Amino acid sequence: MKLVVPFVRQVEFGPNDALVDHLRDALPELDIVVHADVSPADLATARVAIVDGPSADQLLTMANLELVQSTWAGVEAIIPAVPSGVHIARMIDPQLGWTMAEAVLAWTLYLHRDMPRYAHQQRAHQWVEHVPVSADSRRIGVLGLGALGALAATTLRDQRFDVAGWSRSPKAIDGVLCLDGDAGIGQLLERCDIVINLLPHTEATAGLLDAEAFARMPAGASLINFGRGQTVVDDDLLGALDMHLEHAVLDVFTIEPLPDEHPFWNHPSVTVLPHISGPTSTDTAAVIAAANVRQFLADGTLPTAAIVDRTRGY
Amino acid sequence: MKLVVPFVRQVEFGPNDALVDHLRDALPELDIVVHADVSPADLATARVAIVDGPSADQLLTMANLELVQSTWAGVEAIIPAVPSGVHIARMIDPQLGWTMAEAVLAWTLYLHRDMPRYAHQQRAHQWVEHVPVSADSRRIGVLGLGALGALAATTLRDQRFDVAGWSRSPKAIDGVLCLDGDAGIGQLLERCDIVINLLPHTEATAGLLDAEAFARMPAGASLINFGRGQTVVDDDLLGALDMHLEHAVLDVFTIEPLPDEHPFWNHPSVTVLPHISGPTSTDTAAVIAAANVRQFLADGTLPTAAIVDRTRGY
Repeated sequence: MKLVVPFVRQVEFGPNDALVDHLRDALPELDIVVHADVSPADLATARVAIVDGPSADQLLTMANLELVQSTWAGVEAIIPAVPSGVHIARMIDPQLGWTMAEAVLAWTLYLHRDMPRYAHQQRAHQWVEHVPVSADSRRIGVLGLGALGALAATTLRDQRFDVAGWSRSPKAIDGVLCLDGDAGIGQLLERCDIVINLLPHTEATAGLLDAEAFARMPAGASLINFGRGQTVVDDDLLGALDMHLEHAVLDVFTIEPLPDEHPFWNHPSVTVLPHISGPTSTDTAAVIAAANVRQFLADGTLPTAAIVDRTRGY
Repeated sequence: MKLVVPFVRQVEFGPNDALVDHLRDALPELDIVVHADVSPADLATARVAIVDGPSADQLLTMANLELVQSTWAGVEAIIPAVPSGVHIARMIDPQLGWTMAEAVLAWTLYLHRDMPRYAHQQRAHQWVEHVPVSADSRRIGVLGLGALGALAATTLRDQRFDVAGWSRSPKAIDGVLCLDGDAGIGQLLERCDIVINLLPHTEATAGLLDAEAFARMPAGASLINFGRGQTVVDDDLLGALDMHLEHAVLDVFTIEPLPDEHPFWNHPSVTVLPHISGPTSTDTAAVIAAANVRQFLADGTLPTAAIVDRTRGY
């Protein structure tokens, strides 16, 4: 009999049939079953689960797990919901890196080439040309220089932008000003016209972008948040947009979907996106998850880059 | 006494003090005078004029011109307004190439990453994720493979897009499918999800993008026009947008500024821009214009790339 591997996704997100189909194709030797269809006995004995935005409740029903393989890069919601002896593997997918770097470039150009302003003008039938800034005079800052952040930074650099990046520990990237530590984040905020947050949600990043941080940014600067909603203090961002910040492009929020009554929806200086900057690519993610699960079941190991460090939080 | 060189710009556009200042810095041996301030005697005897979007009336007052140096790449409005013995030099500025290639990339990504659709959703407070298409599955077509078009095509290619280009005569660009001639334009229109027009306005391009051309484009395809407004038949584009085309990004129009009553302004599938894709960079353009004028006054020659061929129209 095939080993049952529950596929766990919170009900609010709806099904993800494409991903389940790809996983079944990639792991024919296992029985991939959607969580709601798994018997209580199989849930209690499952050794491996593949999760795609699970709820804590769903994870708690599986008492004998050895491995939770996530199809997402961000695993902050999973860590507190599984016992410390359970291994967690996050998704490291080159396709995700390209898609995310492309999103960073796309919405940087959106701000750099004044698209929000021209959209307002079109609604008012206004024909006003704004003098463009050349890319090499536009200072961009990337918060987070992991696999995704480093690729985003070099993509912007290759498009002639003046790029700085920040990470907790020192990094070196050719043609990118790399800052680190507590002093470095202040330097980055003070020098950049567009700040792009790609940090994971951890204890260290929660509320990092608050009124004090926004006050360090120059007048007319903008924020892109493609990391996690919890890194930004919403009210402080709204206050800064009313004062000296120009625009915010927000793809992630503390509560998703963004509640209908949230002031971000109608704010003229906020672009709201429905968490689409770095979507999971179902076909490539299925192949990568399958390889990790197969390796783990064979010898108990995982690729180093996929292993989640609980103390670090990602 | 210094030679008087009229600076000619139609009154409707307002002054361009920054460009005049840069020209004076770059040509201290000449007397750059704004057209309205030039005496009738100096207008009648001027050998060289520097023009920045002139009207035909202004050009007709200068009977002894030998050279008209334009600060624009597009010179179709100048050709019929000056006698055939007068040399015309167009602006070939690498900075313009970078700015235009950046605009092509920016608005291609705008369409590629569904920005118009997400803007509509934000206004309706709708949280709906659309599955992204990977860049290498997105077929882009560039009409015009001169200096600007070739740089735009390679910029898109470097961002992983599937790029084709079309020119009247055969070209070869590494990693870009180069099509040419009457058959080639049909092939390009039939294969591309996003078509970018960069063609100059000539007899051969006037009305080129008409109902028949749009009918060849696949359902869901989009148009970006950064060339000249006269290349597009407005009513045919509106008809195609109501039928099978997805969106149009228009930066150039037959009449500019776009008249207030034009249906493009309010059309939900049209993005109207005020001719900002390839603006003249005043500092670099002044240096290039100065070098051309100085060379012409010294020995009567001009850089080959700057010389306008009247029969070709650019």
